[in-house]
Amino acid sequence: MTGGPRQTPVDGPTVAVIGGGQLARMMQPAAIALGVPLRLLAEAPGVSAAQVVADPQLGAATDLEALRQAADGCAVLTFDHEHVPTDHLHALAAEGVVCRPGPEALVHAQDKAVMRRRMTVLGVTCPRWQVVSSPQSVGDVADELGGFPLVLKTTRGGYDGKGVWIVDSTADSKPAFDAAAAAGVEVLAEERVDFVRELACVVARSPSGQTAAYPVVESVQRDGICHEVVAPAPGLDEDLAVQAQQIALRVAGELDVTGVLAVEMFETRDGRVLVNELAMRPHNSGHWSIDGAVTSQFENHLRAVLDLPLGSARARAPWTVMVNVLGADVDRLYDGYLHVFARDPAVKVHLYGKSVRPGRKVGHVTTYGDDLEQVRARARHAAGWFAGTEDEEAAG
Amino acid sequence: MTGGPRQTPVDGPTVAVIGGGQLARMMQPAAIALGVPLRLLAEAPGVSAAQVVADPQLGAATDLEALRQAADGCAVLTFDHEHVPTDHLHALAAEGVVCRPGPEALVHAQDKAVMRRRMTVLGVTCPRWQVVSSPQSVGDVADELGGFPLVLKTTRGGYDGKGVWIVDSTADSKPAFDAAAAAGVEVLAEERVDFVRELACVVARSPSGQTAAYPVVESVQRDGICHEVVAPAPGLDEDLAVQAQQIALRVAGELDVTGVLAVEMFETRDGRVLVNELAMRPHNSGHWSIDGAVTSQFENHLRAVLDLPLGSARARAPWTVMVNVLGADVDRLYDGYLHVFARDPAVKVHLYGKSVRPGRKVGHVTTYGDDLEQVRARARHAAGWFAGTEDEEAAG
Repeated sequence: MTGGPRQTPVDGPTVAVIGGGQLARMMQPAAIALGVPLRLLAEAPGVSAAQVVADPQLGAATDLEALRQAADGCAVLTFDHEHVPTDHLHALAAEGVVCRPGPEALVHAQDKAVMRRRMTVLGVTCPRWQVVSSPQSVGDVADELGGFPLVLKTTRGGYDGKGVWIVDSTADSKPAFDAAAAAGVEVLAEERVDFVRELACVVARSPSGQTAAYPVVESVQRDGICHEVVAPAPGLDEDLAVQAQQIALRVAGELDVTGVLAVEMFETRDGRVLVNELAMRPHNSGHWSIDGAVTSQFENHLRAVLDLPLGSARARAPWTVMVNVLGADVDRLYDGYLHVFARDPAVKVHLYGKSVRPGRKVGHVTTYGDDLEQVRARARHAAGWFAGTEDEEAAG
Repeated sequence: MTGGPRQTPVDGPTVAVIGGGQLARMMQPAAIALGVPLRLLAEAPGVSAAQVVADPQLGAATDLEALRQAADGCAVLTFDHEHVPTDHLHALAAEGVVCRPGPEALVHAQDKAVMRRRMTVLGVTCPRWQVVSSPQSVGDVADELGGFPLVLKTTRGGYDGKGVWIVDSTADSKPAFDAAAAAGVEVLAEERVDFVRELACVVARSPSGQTAAYPVVESVQRDGICHEVVAPAPGLDEDLAVQAQQIALRVAGELDVTGVLAVEMFETRDGRVLVNELAMRPHNSGHWSIDGAVTSQFENHLRAVLDLPLGSARARAPWTVMVNVLGADVDRLYDGYLHVFARDPAVKVHLYGKSVRPGRKVGHVTTYGDDLEQVRARARHAAGWFAGTEDEEAAG
C-alpha cells in the first residue's frame, strides 16, 4: 500500500461505559455518529449493549480491577447504571481516572438518604422524609410525616419500583427492613405525596459548566415502572415548567453533575413540584429525545462527559410520546413489526435485544406530531401490540 | 437465577453486510434501534464499520468462502458496496442465500453497460451512449454522440469520480482504455450532458413490492465526488420531481431491486431528467435522511431487505442540507467539535472513523430548518471547519 494513512483511523477519545443495559446500548448510535469509540464493561456476554459494540469487556461493576481495566486508555468513564460502589469510584478518581459524573455527585443518585439530606440543605422542595432506624419507630415517623400510608425505600440499590414499599401500618414495614438489612443499607421513610401527576426534567451539564435543559415531560408510572412519557407535559403551567427546569439545573450545578441528570418530580395539587428521585445518566423519561429532540439525551450525555459543547435540547415536534414495551406473553417481539410498521409508517421502534420477562422493559416506541391524542394513541397501540396487550379492534 | 429468560435475548433475524465502509457503519444505529443484529464482513480490522459492530468477520468481498461464512445463519445478505463479483452472488443464491438486492438486480449497479442497455430497453431517458471497443473507434463514437468532449467510463469498478474520464480527443482516451484493459472490463462512452444540475432520488423497495420514495434532492458534485445535497431540490418543477420519483420507482420495480436504490440524474436545460448512475444500497445523496427524514435510508434499507413494512420517507423540515467532510490538511477531526458545536448547537455531525486522506469522504454534517440559505451556510461552515478550509471570518 502506497501512501498509508497519516493518522490512526479513530482520532477521538474513547469513552468507557460501565454496565451493558439498554442505556449503554442507546449510547452507541450517538457514539457512532460522533466517531467516538465506546469501551463497554458488560456484566455478561450478550447483554443488551454487548450485542452492539466492538469487543465488550466482561466483568462486574462491583469489581475494582475490572473497572480499572475498562478505564485504561479511555479519556473518561461513565455509567449505564448507578450500581458501581462509591468507594471504587473514589479509588479510581484517586488513580487519575476521569469519572463523569464523579463519585461526589453520583452518591446522590446512589443513596437516597444522602440525596434527601442534600436537597434539604439546598432548600429544594421534596416530600417530607426521615431515615428510620428500626421497625419500632415507623409509627412515630408516620406521625411526624402526616400519617400512613407511608413510603419506605431502601436507601441504595432500588430501581423500577424495586426497593420501594407503600405501607399502611408498622406491621407492613417488615419487608422493607428485611431488604435493607440484607443489603446492609438503611430505610428511608417519605410522606406519600398527593400528587396530580409525575413530571421529569432531563438536563445535561458539562465539566465546563454548560447546561442544556430538555422540556419538562409528564411521566406516567405503573407499579413503579415508567410506562409512558409525554413531551412536553400537557397543560403544564409555564411558571411551574420553568421552576422544574430551574430545580434540575440548580441540582446539576450544586452537585457538580457531569453528564445527564434526570430529576423526577411530583406535581402537587397545590401547584408545587417536589423532587422525587435523581438519576445521573440517560433516563427513561428522556428516551423520547432520540426521535423527538434536535439532540438526543444519549448524544448530550456523551458530549457532556467529553466536555464538548452541548447540543440543542429543543423538541422537533409539538408533541412527542414515548411508551415502553414491557415484557409480556409474546414469543418474538420481532413479529410485531409486521403489524406495527404496516399500520403506522412514522412510528419509531427501539427494541433492546433483551429476553422477554413479564414487566421487564424490553423496548420503547416513539411517535410525534401535532395532535396529542392521535400521537398518544399511535404510541400506545404500537407498544401494546408488541406486548400482546393490544389488538386491532382496541386501537379504535 | 430463578426463572431464566424464556427465549434468547435477540429474537430477530441477523443481517449479513458485505463491506466495512461508512454505509455499513451507518446501518448499525438503525439496526440497534430495530433490535436486528448485523454480521459484518470487513475487508480489514478497524475499518469504519468494524469499529462499531460486535465480532466483525475479516475477509474479502471477492472471496466466495468468506461470503458463505458471513451469510451462514443470517436471514439475508446485503451490501455496503457493489464490488462483490456477480458470479459469487449467483453461486450464493443457488445455495439458498437470500441476497438483497439479488444478483440479477445488482448487476445493473455493477456494470454500467448492462445498466445502459436495460434503461434503453425500458425507455428510461439516459445520456446517449455506446460501448467502445477500441481507442481507434472513439472518433466515430464521438461523431455519433454529438462530438467531443465525451465521457468515458470503465463499465465496472468506478466510484467517486474514479473510472471516469472526460476526453477532448481520441488521444485523450488512452488512460480509460488502459484502465479498462487492466481491470478486464469495457469502456462506455456517453455524451457530455449540458445539465443545469444533478438530482438524485432514493427509493426503498421490499421483496413484497412495497416502495417508499424520498424527496428528490439536488446533489452538488466536485471532481466527481458528491459534495453537498439539498433536500428537497430547490425550485424543482413539481412535474419534473414527480417524473424523477416515477423513474426511480419504475427502475426499482422493473429491475426487482430490494433495499435502497439511488438514481442519480441530470436535469437538462430543456427540462428533462436523464439517468446518470444507479446505486443499490444507501447512498450519499440520502445521508440527509438520518437527521432529516422520518425514517432514514439506512433504516429503510434494513426494513426493505428484511421485507418489513417500510417507514415514511417524508422530510421533517422544509430544508435539509448535507455537506460531506472531505479529508484535508487537519490532524484530528475530533478537535473540530469545539468550534462546530459551540457555534451551532443544532448541527448534526457524523464522523466515520476513517483515516484522513485528501479528498476522502471522512464524515458529513447535516443541518435543517426553514431558511435554505441559513441552513446551507451552517452546513457548509461546519463541514469546512472540519476540513480546515473554513475559518471564522469566512463564515460571515
